[in-house]
Parts: sequence; structure tokens; C-alpha cells
Amino acid sequence: MESEGPLGTYFDFSSADDLFGVETWENAETELVRQTLDCALKKAQITSSQLDFVLGGDLLNQCTATSYGCMPHNVPYLGLYGACSTFAEGLLVGASMMESARFETGGVVVSSHFSSAERQYRFPLEYGCQRPPTSQRTVTGCGAALLHAKKTQKCKDAICITGGRIGLIVDSKVKDANHMGAAMAPAAADTLCAFLHESKTAARDYDLILTGDLGKIGAELFTELCAQKGFFFSDNYVDCGTQIFSEQQDVHAGASGCACSAIYICGYLSKIWRNAPLFRVLLLGTGALLSPLTVQQKHSIPGIAHLIVLERG
Amino acid sequence: MESEGPLGTYFDFSSADDLFGVETWENAETELVRQTLDCALKKAQITSSQLDFVLGGDLLNQCTATSYGCMPHNVPYLGLYGACSTFAEGLLVGASMMESARFETGGVVVSSHFSSAERQYRFPLEYGCQRPPTSQRTVTGCGAALLHAKKTQKCKDAICITGGRIGLIVDSKVKDANHMGAAMAPAAADTLCAFLHESKTAARDYDLILTGDLGKIGAELFTELCAQKGFFFSDNYVDCGTQIFSEQQDVHAGASGCACSAIYICGYLSKIWRNAPLFRVLLLGTGALLSPLTVQQKHSIPGIAHLIVLERG
Repeated sequence: MESEGPLGTYFDFSSADDLFGVETWENAETELVRQTLDCALKKAQITSSQLDFVLGGDLLNQCTATSYGCMPHNVPYLGLYGACSTFAEGLLVGASMMESARFETGGVVVSSHFSSAERQYRFPLEYGCQRPPTSQRTVTGCGAALLHAKKTQKCKDAICITGGRIGLIVDSKVKDANHMGAAMAPAAADTLCAFLHESKTAARDYDLILTGDLGKIGAELFTELCAQKGFFFSDNYVDCGTQIFSEQQDVHAGASGCACSAIYICGYLSKIWRNAPLFRVLLLGTGALLSPLTVQQKHSIPGIAHLIVLERG
Repeated sequence: MESEGPLGTYFDFSSADDLFGVETWENAETELVRQTLDCALKKAQITSSQLDFVLGGDLLNQCTATSYGCMPHNVPYLGLYGACSTFAEGLLVGASMMESARFETGGVVVSSHFSSAERQYRFPLEYGCQRPPTSQRTVTGCGAALLHAKKTQKCKDAICITGGRIGLIVDSKVKDANHMGAAMAPAAADTLCAFLHESKTAARDYDLILTGDLGKIGAELFTELCAQKGFFFSDNYVDCGTQIFSEQQDVHAGASGCACSAIYICGYLSKIWRNAPLFRVLLLGTGALLSPLTVQQKHSIPGIAHLIVLERG
């Protein structure tokens, strides 16, 4: 479905088999992580032994897709859990660690899988549960980015991380696990508005402002919340969750999952970056910090959004 | 049980009620995180608004104890998942981020709870399942450390993080989720031996070498594995998992959980540090990267161990 969407032709690899040749969806997600990291290393013409660390995570309990997927690469591994904000969290933590001057090359890898997520968070797929209009479809995908401390000839066209802001956990008071856009929008608005205020910049100073996976409804809410705080967008705001699938693919409110922003950035944006008029881009990685148990125990769903500034090198 | 153990009198706070006055064990763990961070801030005489970030995690699915427990503090939050190695991972990531000179003060908080872990990873407590001799008891506890980028008058007696090593994921080939010490020992030996080799130091150069939660059996295995690689300990090696409970408390192979090394370091070691002949200490945070699902799907249990060097300031 991801490869049939509007960005399908940009992705490095796609498969018609959502099991990737293995026996379970969880193993498929593991395989996806292993192959994606492999692909990133090959494209950069380096080997995994040159990686000083890999930061990664996914949505499975205990983040096993990433740990089992990174294991064959034999890399120093740091597990993250930021729900769907994990890609931005990894870039933010990785870039900060890079500035210590103790590391040369690092990696960030995140994944999600519709079928492994559905049966863990909601219902077994075999049950055929009807999904409400506010629901989003978890992206089956994986994105990996390599971080270099210094610009060299080899990575001279690389995108630079020039700033960021670690998100606060914002309680949205939303209790509906099928309404994640609404649960994450307040956190995204909180982080963006605080960043613009502190950096004394306006939304129009950026060629593109991206949110990770708010979906159609969440993106509207986010725009409204920002407007209430006095920050307005022109047509430079896009939610990655509205870009992965087409209207015809009938995914209700859009796409979601760790891989949503990761495949948008790594699989698409990084490829059009040089030819598009993009100089400064903001990415707000959005995450909903719920678990099936916190939903059963009637807690509201806290949201978080980490921001990074990407600039043309 | 933790307060009745050999280190019980050192802890800042203990409670006879494992529900901490709330309704579920998961909420109790959340409350534990909230209170522990509060306690650390009060002891340092700072407020949560002075924290540039908090790195944290726990064993619950989607690490909800830490995220819900940090939420009321309104702090920039970065979620980690390193299983029982999360405390060492947090110190390692935090110390590296601190070196970027972009942060002044950060926090690391990790928790575990016997009852919330048991019902998630193994069996409902009400079932009264018999535990095998290799099993360990998850520590109900929480530890928090504050990181300062610079030594000031206020933290002049603080312990310094002077080095570290990010662990590789090592497949132990162990498939028994009740034999975690054996699953983690190879990773701990791998990290320690690589570190000693690269730093050209010997085990005797350190006043104390700590592993996180290998337990009695795992600690023996670890000692053997290190000896096979040519590294020998005198009496300067201690596993935190053998220190929390006494022999009489009948916890089989010892203690485990994220909180095991955290309460040993924060609750005990930091307090005796000044009066004990401790100058250089190595902590190997050990973690088993399994999930209940990977065990059901017959995968072996990968281990990881992150190392940090702690020195008298």
C-alpha cells in the first residue's frame, strides 16, 4: 500500500509481501530493520563496523523489531522509546551526542508495521474490526539516517541538523486510542510555538514545516492551536501522515507510525531536497505515549513532539 | 522487601504498601517515578524547570511508568528502552549530550515494579506460579540521577562520569525467560573485556566493578567468561543483583529490573562513596532485550551491556 501511494516510486525498496519472506509480522518488521540499515550503509559506502552507535526504536512491546534487526549488524546499540516521535528523537539525541566530538558516524533507524501494530495495540486482524473515521493506518516501513559529525567530501550534499527542541509531555485529555491525531496535536503545537517564540522566528521563515503523523484531523487541530497562539502557516505546512497514502486508498484520517515521518524524510524528502527550493525545514516528530494497558485502565493519552531543524549544507 | 534487605536503611524513601496509595501496580510505578524525580530535585535544591532534559525508561510496554510519571514535572522528555540496562544507557547518553555544551542540567530516571513486571512478562501473581531456582526477583524501586555539565560549588562532591562504552547486542542463545543472568552475562563480558582491552587497563585498576542484575548464576558465568578472555577479578567485582535482597529473603538467583542498579548506585553507593575508598568504579548496566512475544515465538534472548566509568570528582 505504501508503494502504491503518491510517494511510492521514491522508496529504495518495496515488497508486495508484508511478511518479507518470513513467518510472522514481528519477524517481518525485524527483517525490515535489518535490510534498511543495510541499504543505508551501502548507499553511504560504509560498513556497520564504522558506526559508533545506532539509535533506534519501534512500536512493538520492548522495541524488539529494532533490537533483533540491529543485532546481525553488530553495532553499538542505544534503544529509544518515543512512540511515533522516535525518528525525530533519534536525530535529536544523535546530533547532540555528535557534538561531544567523541563520535564520527552514527545511525538512526525506526520501523513500524501495520499488522504487528494492529494486533498488539487494537484487535487481531482476523477479527475484521471496523475502524472509525478518526483512525489512521500504521505505515509498514522503515527509515534509516546516518549522522556524520563532520562534513567530508563523501557527504558534502548531506542535510545538516542545525537545531532542535526536546518536547514536553502534554496531556491531551483524549482517551480514544482511535483518535491519535487529536491526542498529539497539542504537544506538537506546544513544541513548535515555544521553538518559534524562543528562536524569534516565524513559520514563514521555513520553507517547510512538517509534523510526523497527526493525520488529516490532527493536522487541522494543530493548525488551529498554533493560530490560537498567534502562529500562522501559509502553504508551507505539511503533515507526513497525509502524504503516504492517497485519498483513494481509504485509510480514513491518514498514515501513522514511527515509519511515517521516517520514510517521508529518508525515502522522499532527502531525494528531492537538492532540486526543490528547500533551505530550512522543521520536522516535528509526534508521538502518543499510550499503551494498550493505559487505555484499558482509562488513562488519557499523553502526546509528545520533538523538533529538529534541517538545513541545506 | 527492598527496605528489609541489606541496603534498606540507605534508601531515601520506602513504603510498606506496594501500591503506593493508588489503585494499580502500574499506577504505583508511575507514582514511584514522579516521587523519585521530586526527591532528586529537592535534594539538589533545584526545580524541574531547571532540567534541560530527562532521559528515562522502565520495563512496562511502551515505558508508560516513566512517561506518565515524568508528565507532572513538565520536563523535556526523552524515552529510552534498554531493558534493565536503561539506567547505564541514560547516564551514557546524558553524559554524551552534556558534552555538546548545549545543556546545563539533565536527569536520568528509571523504575521497575515486581508486580507490574510479573503480570506483564510472566504470569498473573494470583496464579501463584512456582519460580525456578534460576529466576530473579524484579526490584520494586526507582532511582534518579541528576547530571551537571560543569562542576559548581553546589555539586562539588558529585561523582563524575569520565568514560563509557555503548554495548553491542549479543545473542546468548538462551531461550529461558527465567534464566536472564545467563542471557545477559555474555554481553556484559563482551563490553567489559573490549573496554579493558581498548583502554589498556586491567580489572585491578578499578576499586569496584559492578554489573547491573546478573544475579548469582549470571555473575558466576560472567566471571568465567571474563577469565576465558584473560581478565581476572580480585574481590573488586560485585553484581548489584546479589546485593538488594538477603539470602533469607529467598529470591532464588537474586534481584533484577531497571531499578536494581539504579537503587544500588543512587540509593546506596552515592551515599557511601565519600567515606569508602572508591576512586574509580565501572558500572555495566545489563539488559535482556526480550519481550513476552519473542519468547512465545521461540527466539533466543539477546543481551546488552552499557559501561560507564564513575570517578571521584
